[in-house]
This record gives sequence, C-alpha cells and structure tokens, in this order.
Amino acid sequence: MNITYLVDRLAETTPGAPAIWLAAGKCRSWAEVRARMDQLADALRDHGVGPGDRIGLLSTNRPEFLELLLAASRMGAVTVPFNYRLAPAELAYQIDHADLALCFVEDACRGSYDAAAPACPTEILESAAIDEWIACGALTPNMQDLPAGAPLGIFYTGGTTGLPKGVVLSHDNFLANAVNVTGRVPYGPADVHLHAAPLFHLADLGATFNALLVGGSHAFASQFRPPEILEQIQAHGVTAMLLAPTMIGMLVRDPAIATADTSSMRLLNYGGSPITDDLLREAMARLDCDFNQGFGQTEATQTITLLSAEDHRTALERPDLLRSCGRPIGSVAVRVVDGDDRPLPPGETGEIAVYGPTVMTGYWRQPEITAETLRGGWLHTGDIGLRDHDGLLRLVDRKKDMIVSGGENVYSTEVENALTDHPDILEAAVFAVPDKDLGERVHATLVLQPGKSLTLETVQGHCRAQIAGYKIPRSIAIADALPKTAAGKVQKADLRAAHWNRKDRNVA
Amino acid sequence: MNITYLVDRLAETTPGAPAIWLAAGKCRSWAEVRARMDQLADALRDHGVGPGDRIGLLSTNRPEFLELLLAASRMGAVTVPFNYRLAPAELAYQIDHADLALCFVEDACRGSYDAAAPACPTEILESAAIDEWIACGALTPNMQDLPAGAPLGIFYTGGTTGLPKGVVLSHDNFLANAVNVTGRVPYGPADVHLHAAPLFHLADLGATFNALLVGGSHAFASQFRPPEILEQIQAHGVTAMLLAPTMIGMLVRDPAIATADTSSMRLLNYGGSPITDDLLREAMARLDCDFNQGFGQTEATQTITLLSAEDHRTALERPDLLRSCGRPIGSVAVRVVDGDDRPLPPGETGEIAVYGPTVMTGYWRQPEITAETLRGGWLHTGDIGLRDHDGLLRLVDRKKDMIVSGGENVYSTEVENALTDHPDILEAAVFAVPDKDLGERVHATLVLQPGKSLTLETVQGHCRAQIAGYKIPRSIAIADALPKTAAGKVQKADLRAAHWNRKDRNVA
Repeated sequence: MNITYLVDRLAETTPGAPAIWLAAGKCRSWAEVRARMDQLADALRDHGVGPGDRIGLLSTNRPEFLELLLAASRMGAVTVPFNYRLAPAELAYQIDHADLALCFVEDACRGSYDAAAPACPTEILESAAIDEWIACGALTPNMQDLPAGAPLGIFYTGGTTGLPKGVVLSHDNFLANAVNVTGRVPYGPADVHLHAAPLFHLADLGATFNALLVGGSHAFASQFRPPEILEQIQAHGVTAMLLAPTMIGMLVRDPAIATADTSSMRLLNYGGSPITDDLLREAMARLDCDFNQGFGQTEATQTITLLSAEDHRTALERPDLLRSCGRPIGSVAVRVVDGDDRPLPPGETGEIAVYGPTVMTGYWRQPEITAETLRGGWLHTGDIGLRDHDGLLRLVDRKKDMIVSGGENVYSTEVENALTDHPDILEAAVFAVPDKDLGERVHATLVLQPGKSLTLETVQGHCRAQIAGYKIPRSIAIADALPKTAAGKVQKADLRAAHWNRKDRNVA
Repeated sequence: MNITYLVDRLAETTPGAPAIWLAAGKCRSWAEVRARMDQLADALRDHGVGPGDRIGLLSTNRPEFLELLLAASRMGAVTVPFNYRLAPAELAYQIDHADLALCFVEDACRGSYDAAAPACPTEILESAAIDEWIACGALTPNMQDLPAGAPLGIFYTGGTTGLPKGVVLSHDNFLANAVNVTGRVPYGPADVHLHAAPLFHLADLGATFNALLVGGSHAFASQFRPPEILEQIQAHGVTAMLLAPTMIGMLVRDPAIATADTSSMRLLNYGGSPITDDLLREAMARLDCDFNQGFGQTEATQTITLLSAEDHRTALERPDLLRSCGRPIGSVAVRVVDGDDRPLPPGETGEIAVYGPTVMTGYWRQPEITAETLRGGWLHTGDIGLRDHDGLLRLVDRKKDMIVSGGENVYSTEVENALTDHPDILEAAVFAVPDKDLGERVHATLVLQPGKSLTLETVQGHCRAQIAGYKIPRSIAIADALPKTAAGKVQKADLRAAHWNRKDRNVA
C-alpha cells in the first residue's frame, strides 16, 4: 500500500483544513497539498523518474522538502535525504552509493554539494523552482499501487566499519511506526507539528507520518535556532515537536524564551539520548506540556520503546526512571539476547534485539550485513541493555561504539579512520565523554609517532576535510599506548571509565 | 513472531498481577498463566501435536478455552473454535474440513458433538481434565519461533455458496488488530475484560489479544445470560465487555439490573450491527461508560472502522452518526470500489475494500475463493457502502446477502438450500426483516409445488435437522412467484423493500 493514501483521506474529509504552514501566516490546505503532490508526482514521471528510482534531497527544513517526499512516495520513487553537515567526501560517497536518478539541492546547501562534485543530475530545491515543476504536472490522481514492503526511502547511518549504511524503510514500516506512536502519544487533527529537528534525520521525518495519520498540520523551522523555533511556535500555535535533549536545553535556556508565549505546546517528544533530571524539571516547568521519550534507531523506523508522559511526571519524584528508555511500543517486540541469540531473562545484560513490522527491509546493496543484522528475523540493534523487573528497558552500553553528540550519531570508527590518516598519529581510540551541553562529546586518545607532538587545533584541522564538523574530536589526550586485551583489541571501557561516573550513564 | 510473547512480557513485569479470574473469587496470576501455558504446550507436543496441526475447541466460555488457545498458539498449533449452536451436519462439515489433529469438547457440548460423529480424536475440555494435561507437561519455555504470517487460528464463517469458509488468521494479524484497537480505545492494565459474547466468535476472541497487549485480566461468563453477566461484573469489578447490540438490549432491560452495581464498567464495545438511538440512550444512561462501535469482519481480524466514544456522546444530539460505522482504524486502509475495482470518491456507493496487516492470509484450502476475495492485494468485504464527506463509512447493503440476527451472521444461501430440500418447496428467497429484539430476523418467501401448503412450524421442523437454530426462518410468506430480473436472478431488494423503511437501515 502506498502511504500517501493518508493525504487522500485528509483531502477528502477535511479538504479545507490547514496542512502546511508557510511564511507570512499563509497556509496550504489538504486539498491543495494533495493536488500539488499529484502534479509534482506527474512532473517527476514526465522527467523520466520511475517507481524504485532514488531521488536525493539536500536541504534544510522547508515545506518543499515535505512536498518532494510526498510526491516521490506517491509515484513509487525512493527518497534519499542527506545530512547537510557532512564533509564533501562523505556526501560524495552516499550520493554515489544511493545511485540517484536525480538530486534536489537547496541553494543554501549548494556549496557542500558542489564540493562533493557528484555525477548525478541536479535540480533546484527552492519554492519557485518546485512551483515550476508543479505547474508542469497533470492534476490527475497519481498514486502508484505498491506491493507490501515497497521502499519509501533510504536513510544513511554511520557504520561500525567506517562506511555508512543505507537503511531501506518501506511505506509499511512508516505506517506501522505511526500507528504505534499515535496509539501511545495522543496526537490529534488539531495538532501543529513543528519540524524543528532536521527532516533529513529519521526521527523528524517519521513524525511526519504520525501527523498524516491523524490529520495534524506542519510548520517548519529551517534549522534549529531557538529564536526561530519560538517565532514559529507563536506564529502557528505549534503544539508538538520532536527534539534531541540538547535542543531542549538550548531552547529553554535561550534568553528569548523569557518573553515568548509557548502556551500552545502540548507534546514534546525527544530521543537520541536520555535527559537529565535537572533539564527535565526545568523544561517541564517552562513548557508545561507532556514529555515523551522515544528510544530507537533508524533500522527500526525509529521507535522501539517509549517512556510516557505519565512516566515523566512520576520521574519528578523518581529520577531513576529517566535513565530507562521506557517500554516497548505497540507492535514492537523486544528481547535481550546473549552471544548465541538466546533470550535472556529480566535483569540480565545482553544485546537488544527487535522484531516487528517497523524493522527495516535491509541495508541498501549490502546483503551480507543485512543478513547478519536481521539474523533469525530479529533486528540486532548493537545496543547493550537489560529489561528491568518493571518492564523498563535500560541501556548499558553501545556495542556499536557510537557517540551521541548534540543529537547526532557519531561512529568512533569513522573518526578513528580519519585520525590515523594523519602521518603523525600511530593509533587512535575515540569515545564519548560527558558534556554539559551536548550530552556526550567526541574525545580521542592518541598514540603519536615517536618524537612527534600535535595540538588539538592541528588534529581538528586535519579532520575537517574528511568528516562532518560534529564528528571532529572536541578534546584529545596523548598516551604512550592504548590499553589492549591479550588479543590486541583496544579496551575502550577502561579509557571511558576515567571520564564517567555512575550518575552520568543510563545504567540500571 | 509468536504472539504469546505478550504473556511472557506480563509474567516478567507483573508476575503476581491478576490474569484469569476463576469462580469463587480465585484468580490466576500471569506467572501461573505462563507456567500453565508452557506445560500445556509441552503436553500437547508429547501427545504428537506439531506446529501447523489444527486443534478444535467446542466449548462455552471458560478459562480453559483461553488456556488451550494460548498453549496451542505457544507451540505453533492452529486453534479452530466451533460455534456450539451449529446443527450436527454443519459441525461435522467444519470438523472434517479443518482436518483436526485433536478436538477438545466441553461436556455441555458433547451431545451435538456426538451427533456430528466426527472421526477425529477427542479430548475432554473440563477443568480437571485440563489440569491433568498440565500436570503432565514440562515447565520449560515452550515458545515456538514462527515465521511471518504463521497461522494462529481458523475461523469458520457462512459462505455465499452455502458452504462455510475457514478464515485463516495469523499471529501477526491479531497483534496488528490489537495495536489498532488499543490505540483508539483506552484499554489499560487495570481493565478486567469479561468474555461475555461467545469466545468462538472472532470478536471476543480478538479482544483477548487487546487485553494481552496492555495487561488487562480476563473473566468469563459461560453463556450470555444477563443475570450471569451482572454477577460477574460485580464479582470481579469488570470494566470492559464486547457485545452485540441485541445483548446490550437484553442486559439493560433485564429486571436484575435494577439492583446490580455496574459502576466498575468503563468500556462497552459493540459490533455486528448498528445500535438504535433509543437503545444507546438507555444503555448509556444505565451503564454510564464509554461506548465504541466496531465494524469489521472475520477476514479483517474483525476491526475495520471504529465509531468512537466521543462520536457516541455526539450522537445523543446527532443520532444519524449511529447509522455510520465510524472511521478506519490504525493501519487499516478502506476504499469503496466500483465493479472494476476502481476507487470511488466520497459519496459514491460501491463495495468496501480493505488493505492492511489485519487482512487474513486466506481461506483454508480454498485457493480460488482466496485469490478472488484478495484480488489486487485488497480484501473485498462483500459489503456495500460509501464514505461520506465527514470521512465516516456508511453501510448501504450487503453484497453477500447476509442477515445479522441477534449477533450471529446468517447467509441466506445456506437457509435457502435447506428450504428447497423440502419436497413441497419449489423456490425460496431468504432475507432480513427488522426485529425489535434481534435487530434482524430471518424471513423466507416461498413458492410451493402446485396444490401444496405448509405451516411455519412444518418449515421450521424441516430446517432444524440441517441448520443451526438461529438460522431457521422466524417468519415465512407464501407467494405465487419470486420477482426476477430478465436474467432470472431473484430480486431480493424488491422483496426486502416491503419490510424496511429508511429509518431501519443504516443508510446515509
């Protein structure tokens, strides 16, 4: 089934209701959004795009991002959104790997796109340009019937091997996630969802379909800047957002909030990392709305467990709750398994494995890694945790050695590869250390070539050309050697231990 | 995935919480229910039952019905519940068609079972007998891993051809339905679901999994008798039931309700046919709880659309709402299609077609009818209706020519076949006429052999040996001829028209 039938449903039942909020208080209705989607789908088809073809999007948040996503899905094409903070080499790899038919690029992202110098045909992602495409399309129903499991998008995530993997998610995946989430978080047709976190990340892109399922409308903040967020909230009466905890901190601690009216806010969903009890207390007092924490990953169409609004209210008295990820959501089954994939009882630590209709169809053009990750029909998340005796899932560590810094996932291997490219660096171990603003920051312990020395600035300058800015180490340490096992494997746990105490980690 | 993982989740997180209410105020906990399920599954396996084997259940509502359903599902066997009101010939056909490995029969149903004289091995479905099975089973985790789409049960429904069809529903179907329903109807762990409608029908059996998903407990009324229902409500603080409108009428008009304390009731879900505004008003005033109407069919794991509690409150002022079936639920997509399966816009009448993860895998051993019913990936429900401009689905007629009498579905062809078996009956047309108590009753217009005459009693006596009591015509008319089309097809619409006025039908 093609998930864009949700747009038809809204266009038929509430044709005049607000759908997409534009600048200057203007608004498109569901009838208009459907018509534009069908026209844009037709124009794409006229341009030679067919079902299954990949269409790239490189853009900040804006209505045309959503319109392209809907139009591409409408005619069975596959959307591939890119992180505009990637370094040119990273972007070039992903664009090439996705084998795009076409890439839509916003003017603001043109610099990094041109630096990546991809070979694929390029189109402009600006209002006037998209309006021209739409004007060329026929206004006939253009919904492509799709078989079960048909892909809607490819979402690149960092990989343990250092190369990103493209997570293929289907129309059915997104619908199942939306049913799961809206069954637990009371979204409704009166909600106004502000796309405040980047739409190229699955978290906010997935929330798009939650709103489509129930009929909420969409507002856009081009990038996460607190004053712009507050402006949008007030301009459109925003009721719902999905943020990373870092963003919540930036928002409630921004001076502009003192005079802002945020009383329309009803639902603040966050994820990516746990929230501290201080920040939660401050944010709940200031925003006075329901907080929900989602834990998940791209491979599971984002949402695996939910720590509910009720849990958050309880957490004001029982802050240990905030160190859990909550309970499995809807149709998602969660197991903790040992090294032989045997399920473990509550209280025992192992890898978190997930089953259900939100699990990805696979990694794009990587059948071996797909088979390994989905062995036995279960998604092996790479996260290490336990289920406690209250049924709450608790994360203990990340098997994949991932750092979550300011809402972005950073894989240590990617950073280590960039570092050891430097002629003076012999070995590098990259890991997360606690950071007041970012939650975690990227830290590197380095072993240098005999007789060499390096400054933090030199190391950062070296990395800049190879990896995105948010992946670059914020601090370094120089050591004579790295702690290793007998088999020669670096023992990062020992390195990390010096930086963390129990209170910082979300350990049971 | 095996849906019995929901039992594990409850046994691990709330091991001591009430799960199954027994007579005399006793209660089994989730830890006990899981242990008994694993032991019973092991005992079944020891008895030679394997994954995919069919196990019949012929029983009124009782805890052991649920325990057998869970144990069979646990080890991958397929449960086939039978309607204990069937005539022996009907029961014999279904038991034979399902090709059972084993049939569990309650003593109270033994008479009709023996009259059907099936060839399959038989076991006793009574507390002591099931306890003996359980005592023989090993207490080890016995959950069979199952592939996507693995069958959980076969549910027989009447057929337009006169022969019943076995609807095969999977573990995934039931989980998807439970997620859909609990996303819209606020079931919770504190709910006590009373199995008041027969468990052999999919409506109540499906509700079992709703409760398992959220952790509610289960109480049982052996058959639908208002005094027993009221007793159970008071004994266990019942909060939720699923009933047919006829049953709601019987309940709130029973003298025993005058002195009964029903204040624990929170959710009354009903389906099978619309409710009249008089009855709704009376029932809402008396039971003072949320009413939800589900429209669906066995082929869609029951729930397709929902008329919500909020709609019911609105309906007190706008009773036309009660003539609709509400809005599509969760992951269910609904289309109205023309004779060539082309989708129709709102306001136009056609066949209701359904897509989503709750659609059956097919009819048991009937690949041709399965392919026809599921053509293009859509379930063709056989119901005729329209989507109105508020997004509400409205039923106009039933393509399948089905009568819903007192909550039971009766297919006119089955009744007509029984009638024309009588030597004096030349032709018969069976259809629904309105009935104050039953909602609809079975009516037959007959054309007799020249010179013959028949009384209602003779006709009913003739039918009794062939079809279940609820299918036997409650009234007959004798005619010289049946109205027919040029092609010779009986025009039932003309016959029906004389009995119905607009107010009776749930027509827009």
